[in-house]
Amino acid sequence: MRANQIPTREVERTPMRFTDRVTADARHGWPIEAGRYRLVINRACPWAHRVVIVRRLMGLDEAISLAVTDPVQEIIDGDPHWVFTAETGSPNDLDPVLGIHALREAYLAREPDYDGGVSVPGLVDVPTGHLVSNDFDRLTLDLGSEWSVLWREDAPDLYPEALRDEIDALNEDIYRDVNNGVYRAGFAPAQDNYDRAVTALFARLDALEARLTRQRFLLGDTITEADIRLFPTLVRFDAVYHGHFKCNIRKLIEYPALWAYARDLFQTPGFGDTVEFDHIRRHYYYVHSAINPARVVAAGPHPGGWLTPHFREQLGGRPFGDGTPPGPPPLIDRVPPIG
Amino acid sequence: MRANQIPTREVERTPMRFTDRVTADARHGWPIEAGRYRLVINRACPWAHRVVIVRRLMGLDEAISLAVTDPVQEIIDGDPHWVFTAETGSPNDLDPVLGIHALREAYLAREPDYDGGVSVPGLVDVPTGHLVSNDFDRLTLDLGSEWSVLWREDAPDLYPEALRDEIDALNEDIYRDVNNGVYRAGFAPAQDNYDRAVTALFARLDALEARLTRQRFLLGDTITEADIRLFPTLVRFDAVYHGHFKCNIRKLIEYPALWAYARDLFQTPGFGDTVEFDHIRRHYYYVHSAINPARVVAAGPHPGGWLTPHFREQLGGRPFGDGTPPGPPPLIDRVPPIG
Repeated sequence: MRANQIPTREVERTPMRFTDRVTADARHGWPIEAGRYRLVINRACPWAHRVVIVRRLMGLDEAISLAVTDPVQEIIDGDPHWVFTAETGSPNDLDPVLGIHALREAYLAREPDYDGGVSVPGLVDVPTGHLVSNDFDRLTLDLGSEWSVLWREDAPDLYPEALRDEIDALNEDIYRDVNNGVYRAGFAPAQDNYDRAVTALFARLDALEARLTRQRFLLGDTITEADIRLFPTLVRFDAVYHGHFKCNIRKLIEYPALWAYARDLFQTPGFGDTVEFDHIRRHYYYVHSAINPARVVAAGPHPGGWLTPHFREQLGGRPFGDGTPPGPPPLIDRVPPIG
Repeated sequence: MRANQIPTREVERTPMRFTDRVTADARHGWPIEAGRYRLVINRACPWAHRVVIVRRLMGLDEAISLAVTDPVQEIIDGDPHWVFTAETGSPNDLDPVLGIHALREAYLAREPDYDGGVSVPGLVDVPTGHLVSNDFDRLTLDLGSEWSVLWREDAPDLYPEALRDEIDALNEDIYRDVNNGVYRAGFAPAQDNYDRAVTALFARLDALEARLTRQRFLLGDTITEADIRLFPTLVRFDAVYHGHFKCNIRKLIEYPALWAYARDLFQTPGFGDTVEFDHIRRHYYYVHSAINPARVVAAGPHPGGWLTPHFREQLGGRPFGDGTPPGPPPLIDRVPPIG
């Protein structure tokens, strides 16, 4: 998402403009094809993070290559833009596959007159350089359902038919109060907007704490799409949302079940191996100068706690259901280990 | 202190301008006299807080009356000023004893051409309305030594002769790294200033944690001036310094000994009964618009934890040495209880 909005009004998410889907029947004109698409993300962005996790869990790492933008956007024509730089593996500041510097070039390739926002994640068609989709909700669901022909063996079922209504309902609550709730608190234009957002956020976290005290994952014994959507917000909570976005009723580490649940996921292949705390901190604190004018990046807390034992296996459960965990990420996609 | 400086350079404290002392021998022309002086403070200000605690512990509440300014400064002639308002007990926005609206009027009464900063605490001579001193370091020491003729029976010795060198040395470290260190972090003009401040702050807190694991108070068995100077920073730590000033390596509650020590003091008469979290939060978050442009006041954490058992009596100790705790504060000085 675009991140450095000035807090003059309540945060509102505009509908995604590019909503083509890559499906098994290619009904939008985009067939499932290994090596054809490139997923452009930023390691700081929680909306992109969901897609990266599903890609890992389903074993699509080789089929869909990953392009990581710099954590700090570059100002181009007065607007902040996601760009490729040497720091994140793009020699000469050009993505080695797409040959572009800024993600917006893929938007403009698709629609030359486009003048809206540019957001990650973006799925780009490599042969034409056209943006296919920036619809992060749909991208996640499609990778976990439509792309089955390219899944690894023993991939999990993240969106089981029988649970879809419950997953959808839970996702809606979590999106409103948690995923987007932290943004509504952090960019609140006035005290009453903040008060409403922070109250709803912690009421929802309290409810999730109760739920996760009884069971290992949000839907029971097995990881689903709902866990994948909650995790990116939890993993950023103490590092950026607690202080920078004033979500400071409690830290995540003060919720025994939620904190153990988050560590359980972090230590599961596909989750912690997609997290780069340095990018998260630098992006949020540096880019949001509207709420952090000196752009000083806060130092804490140390992420070492994420590797401590969680004891959640005592609740039983089968994290991948009838499937298995994914192997390690391809070398090219690896994040630095927690120091 | 003046609090809404723009962070363009490292925080520096200018020397106090008004350093007259009220002493037993009246050598500065100011004799010890019950009812003669009025202490102007703000409940948010940690430097004023020290003086309020010593006044309570020594039983000087009746001898030196207390004037509490509004938590939010008023802009007068372009500068923020501490003022008296109905909210903090000043009908018609005038202090009922001094008859002034802004503390600066006492500065100008003393020195009509004064154009420097105006800070709390300020000791004001009631008959003339003149500011006597804004030297918070010296004020604290003098109340605990020079004012002995007006102390309550069984008042403690907060600054014992035999410990003065050790207290002074410890106070210097704590001032540099902790009391003022949080300000250096919060108002750092650039990343490297912040990094230095936050590193020194947490190194010092780590050292204090080790010290307070072994003994009940900073100098051993009994409360001294050193504890009184550390407490105001600790009691504000999770409420404002952790998030607003980016001192977020750890919360106070993550230091077992320091947090129990801080609660031990909080629950001791003279400490917690001088704390008003609402004023602390509103002042810091609202006034410092240079680092918090939308002026949204963060909601957390709930202060209820300050009343939980601390078990520090297991370390032994005699909090007031050969003295006794003070009684409850005069009705007129009471702060709202923690809800």
